[in-house]
Amino acid sequence: MNAQQFRSAAHEMIDFIIDYLENIRSRRVLPTIQPGYIREMIPEAAPERGESWQVIFQDIERVIMPGVTHWHSPQFHAYFPTGNSWPAILADILSDAIGCIGFSWIASPACTDLEVVMMDWLGQLIGLPSQFLACSGGTGGGVIQGTASEATLVALLAAKSKAIKRLKLMDPNFEESQIFSNLLAYSSDQSHSSVERAGILAGVRVRLLETDECFSLRGETLKLAMEEDRAKGFIPFFVTATLGTTPSCAFDDLSEIGTVCQQFQNIWLHVDAAYAGSAFICDEYRHYLNGLEMADSFNFNPHKWLLINFDCSAMWLKNANDVVDAFNVDPLYLKHDRQGQAPDYRHWQIPLGRRFRSLKLWFVMRSYGAEGLRAHIRQQIQLANEFQQLVAKDDRFEIPVPPAMGLVCFRMKGENSQNEALLKRINDSGRIHMVPAKLRGQFILRLAVCSRYTESHDIVYAWQEVTSHADHLTG
Amino acid sequence: MNAQQFRSAAHEMIDFIIDYLENIRSRRVLPTIQPGYIREMIPEAAPERGESWQVIFQDIERVIMPGVTHWHSPQFHAYFPTGNSWPAILADILSDAIGCIGFSWIASPACTDLEVVMMDWLGQLIGLPSQFLACSGGTGGGVIQGTASEATLVALLAAKSKAIKRLKLMDPNFEESQIFSNLLAYSSDQSHSSVERAGILAGVRVRLLETDECFSLRGETLKLAMEEDRAKGFIPFFVTATLGTTPSCAFDDLSEIGTVCQQFQNIWLHVDAAYAGSAFICDEYRHYLNGLEMADSFNFNPHKWLLINFDCSAMWLKNANDVVDAFNVDPLYLKHDRQGQAPDYRHWQIPLGRRFRSLKLWFVMRSYGAEGLRAHIRQQIQLANEFQQLVAKDDRFEIPVPPAMGLVCFRMKGENSQNEALLKRINDSGRIHMVPAKLRGQFILRLAVCSRYTESHDIVYAWQEVTSHADHLTG
Repeated sequence: MNAQQFRSAAHEMIDFIIDYLENIRSRRVLPTIQPGYIREMIPEAAPERGESWQVIFQDIERVIMPGVTHWHSPQFHAYFPTGNSWPAILADILSDAIGCIGFSWIASPACTDLEVVMMDWLGQLIGLPSQFLACSGGTGGGVIQGTASEATLVALLAAKSKAIKRLKLMDPNFEESQIFSNLLAYSSDQSHSSVERAGILAGVRVRLLETDECFSLRGETLKLAMEEDRAKGFIPFFVTATLGTTPSCAFDDLSEIGTVCQQFQNIWLHVDAAYAGSAFICDEYRHYLNGLEMADSFNFNPHKWLLINFDCSAMWLKNANDVVDAFNVDPLYLKHDRQGQAPDYRHWQIPLGRRFRSLKLWFVMRSYGAEGLRAHIRQQIQLANEFQQLVAKDDRFEIPVPPAMGLVCFRMKGENSQNEALLKRINDSGRIHMVPAKLRGQFILRLAVCSRYTESHDIVYAWQEVTSHADHLTG
Repeated sequence: MNAQQFRSAAHEMIDFIIDYLENIRSRRVLPTIQPGYIREMIPEAAPERGESWQVIFQDIERVIMPGVTHWHSPQFHAYFPTGNSWPAILADILSDAIGCIGFSWIASPACTDLEVVMMDWLGQLIGLPSQFLACSGGTGGGVIQGTASEATLVALLAAKSKAIKRLKLMDPNFEESQIFSNLLAYSSDQSHSSVERAGILAGVRVRLLETDECFSLRGETLKLAMEEDRAKGFIPFFVTATLGTTPSCAFDDLSEIGTVCQQFQNIWLHVDAAYAGSAFICDEYRHYLNGLEMADSFNFNPHKWLLINFDCSAMWLKNANDVVDAFNVDPLYLKHDRQGQAPDYRHWQIPLGRRFRSLKLWFVMRSYGAEGLRAHIRQQIQLANEFQQLVAKDDRFEIPVPPAMGLVCFRMKGENSQNEALLKRINDSGRIHMVPAKLRGQFILRLAVCSRYTESHDIVYAWQEVTSHADHLTG
């Protein structure tokens, strides 16, 4: 394919994706195919000779689309949203063409420099304490990670390294292996599975603590657990607080947790606001951040709810050196003259390579403006409220926790089995898509407002779909 | 920005990137700006109201381009290549529009199913033993990771988990912390910095072994080291062999290393062919893979040398269950009916989320065909040979190791300081870009053929640039 052929193919592809997204309502949100279906549809091996673009292009509709779960359909209400917007797609096209690998400043200065400033813009938009911002001139700053899982793992590994250094300084005879096995991390039993997994990956125990009646981790619970564990000889060193849990979008009490971490000293407090963090661009939700000044690291995913295409997980550190010192390996082929004058982001993350992702933040924040982004968040929350009101009117249903952000948790009164049957019917019909959660043993259905195309009539449609299956079960 | 505005902006962006790449020769390959330059050029905060696309678009040339290191310039000879091609960019546009997060099969079946088959296609193209391929019907299979660093870390963590399980089975009284501190991993002192870093991240000691006169790790060296360490009470459990090292593109003797690993038993052998792996699509280089049937995992980066845009790091496992079992966390909201019938790739990797990256492999393998990809590899190696011949004719220079693949290592005879001065002059002038390495204390210059736009006259230009600076130093 030469440049002229690409021009025509790319213009055609742009028209294709506009058509795909603008008419996505016409597609069944969940596919009906079986595992392995593609193997039946395409050759067993790569072709020896190149094929024409027209042949390849036709296979998108024939081979790919029947197996796509349409995350941007207004009928997609599963998990949490993943971002998608026109300016973000434009930025990714540019990023692909520049195609630089920004592991160090010199490897593409614009890639690092724009990221530093965009993370300041974004941090200001959500009202982060200034210690987290590079523009404050301190040791803080932001970095784009791939996912919240990686942000949690980076924080946990940095905290582990810091704890071991500190304990060995206190007592040089301390065996590292002995420290390892006594280190203890904490989060709530509502925290995302990636927190537990980070513990497995880092070889560190994570204790999952009980939450209050609102599924929120409270300071007193953390305090009692850490006291109990210290008395047993464990070394508490890391806490993940969640702002917006996956099952029910519950918020840990950051202010209480931060205070406890300060009292205990040498506890790294990481805050995971993967989904809900985007809402902090609106003043009315910013109170959830109270206490953040006591945290060491904070993370949320603009690629979830802030109209940025995956991947773009924003992480801020109060002292970036904690991370840089923990994993620093510096071979000659990656050294350059300006080290120390700008971040070498490879030290801030697990992988070495990284794409030019700050372009997405730049294009989207400029194109929507702060007010456009706030309007998006508020509209999605409004749609969730509309759904909640529909549920509340039907006596067969209950709402076990108040809706939060764009998420409504609901269930039919009675047995779990009936709710499992209801969800199975809904997903089997494939007209809308949801996933479940369990809250204190109760099986619940989660309706998350996900697509930027979702409107009031889609919410009505979703509720009609739920009730029609409920009628069948109860009728 | 609405769909119509996007159509016009995207067509304009397509034209912009064609112009950028087709005329990239006219740009200075290394920028001249200072760290933090972007902060001076743009506002301190995100705009309150949205801006028009035309204003944003103009800032690409004004703000971004002055700070870009042009990795796709034919004058870029630093590090190793990063891939870029028209069909790969088309695939990324489509992937952005579909915008699914493929953490489980049901989250977007096409994303998983195409990846399974594309990893088979690619594995067949480079001649992998069938145990690594899903189509063999065994426990093997491939997965797209973000980077080779992540592939190494995933292999190391899986091996660590497997070793601990095995040792605890043998002796249930074995303390995990005692096992941890005795586990020992190996690679050569020429292996990539990410191997050492994986050790730091995983909390495992890595012993870097000496190489032979060709910078190749040999079986006997590994055998002696492991015997010595076992006698001291250490537990050798993991070896990374490198096919194509970063400093000089040296190849470890996989056949010898594999045999030693088999003799010692319970050693996980991981093979890192990040750069050179792409060349195994050509028969004449496939002999480097001899012995691979004794390895447990293999990785190379199509995003380096196979015309695929970053990120796309291909990893194969002989027994995928080793990885799945090591990190498996399975919350209700990620469960689905078809578990076990297709991979849930989230278990194969560090992050939870993942993009639809197999589209790039599909479009590129089909568009170029196997013969087109081979032609690309052979042409780049031919260009490296042309450069080597130019160096060989100049008495002031020496070639400390034979050129390998698209990499030529060379230096001026004599002091390191003169070579350092030479490289600094070259990079300061910014007309071509290279990075150095050290081989047994000798500072060397590395010329890697990187861009798909590089032609013979660019190689001549690079050599002229080198000699003009050398004239200055010796004149």
